[in-house]
Amino acid sequence: MKRLLMVLGLVSTLAYGDIRFAQPEPSIEKPREVVMGISHGDDESIHHGLSTANNVLKFYGPEKIHLRIVAYYHGIRTLLKSEKEIAVRVRALQQYGVEFVACGNTMETKKITPDQLDDDVEIVSAGIAEVIERATEGAFYIQP
Amino acid sequence: MKRLLMVLGLVSTLAYGDIRFAQPEPSIEKPREVVMGISHGDDESIHHGLSTANNVLKFYGPEKIHLRIVAYYHGIRTLLKSEKEIAVRVRALQQYGVEFVACGNTMETKKITPDQLDDDVEIVSAGIAEVIERATEGAFYIQP
Amino acid sequence: MKRLLMVLGLVSTLAYGDIRFAQPEPSIEKPREVVMGISHGDDESIHHGLSTANNVLKFYGPEKIHLRIVAYYHGIRTLLKSEKEIAVRVRALQQYGVEFVACGNTMETKKITPDQLDDDVEIVSAGIAEVIERATEGAFYIQP
Repeated sequence: MKRLLMVLGLVSTLAYGDIRFAQPEPSIEKPREVVMGISHGDDESIHHGLSTANNVLKFYGPEKIHLRIVAYYHGIRTLLKSEKEIAVRVRALQQYGVEFVACGNTMETKKITPDQLDDDVEIVSAGIAEVIERATEGAFYIQP
Repeated sequence: MKRLLMVLGLVSTLAYGDIRFAQPEPSIEKPREVVMGISHGDDESIHHGLSTANNVLKFYGPEKIHLRIVAYYHGIRTLLKSEKEIAVRVRALQQYGVEFVACGNTMETKKITPDQLDDDVEIVSAGIAEVIERATEGAFYIQP
Repeated sequence: MKRLLMVLGLVSTLAYGDIRFAQPEPSIEKPREVVMGISHGDDESIHHGLSTANNVLKFYGPEKIHLRIVAYYHGIRTLLKSEKEIAVRVRALQQYGVEFVACGNTMETKKITPDQLDDDVEIVSAGIAEVIERATEGAFYIQP
């Protein structure tokens, strides 16, 4: 039996325990805080960003990660209602608790109005400042 | 009157208070420390980097942000005197206190001499190490 | 003599002391912790990443830096045995103690098997999570 548990333990190590968690481990009470910036507007960059978000959710579990995605510069395209295919992925991530934020500076430059954005998207005046403030609070910043 | 203040308060919230500041808030005594790397050399990347710097200055106010921009790899082009149009923007940012730093490794590889750089640019031996050391001190690192 | 020392001091300042170290300075006991992500797969991006690693090693000295390079998304190409020219550079960096890590999610998507990777490469289930966990522990994250 002990041997079996050890074997099971080993299997579990290979399958899930490969990444050594930093201390304290992420938990429901204290999830990992991550802020992601998306600044490129081509299909591949946007889908790569959203897939990275997926991988992060899958690894930690949605309840142990607090992920905010800030779209700015050409990356604002991520949040346009008119981009149907992308909008479906954004909606799916939102349903797992991922938050999306649009950069007001970018919207002004590109003449994008709030009603052109997906539902439940926050707007901040400066996307880059949102990233700096959340990171100053301890969030980890990734630009995939 | 109270109503008026509330209305004014609301307006002010929409216009400036949209991003929740991390604690302690940035101040003249303790400005936000940000180090930006520019590593790409195409027009768009460089102008995007400088516009990001502008947005950061505008959001925090020049006296509440300490911004160092490290140009390395192809991004060294940001600091070439011969790039007249870019140099005007660099000079304007310098006048608001933004510091520019050139990577010595890059200068050696690309055979760029100090006199080819804009005025008031610091040179360090390794741009990437400058970024690491400032970030270790607590600066927030952005690569726009 | 004092004058000579001052002159030597100055020379030394120009040559090595140009970057002000954060405190505590990196040491053999407590090297700087850096985690680098490589996500692009074109020749230039990969070689730029490896050259950045070289510059970091050269600046700190191999024993005062602990560098982990996580290859994911198209950047996984960095670790393919079949890429002979890149593999030589990877091997050289490994001999200076640089650690290379492959993203299991990427391997699954791109149908890459462990035997196709260079020797002494670690595999983790999610490259992005490895980056987040090491950074949470205090490593500095660069995406060159």
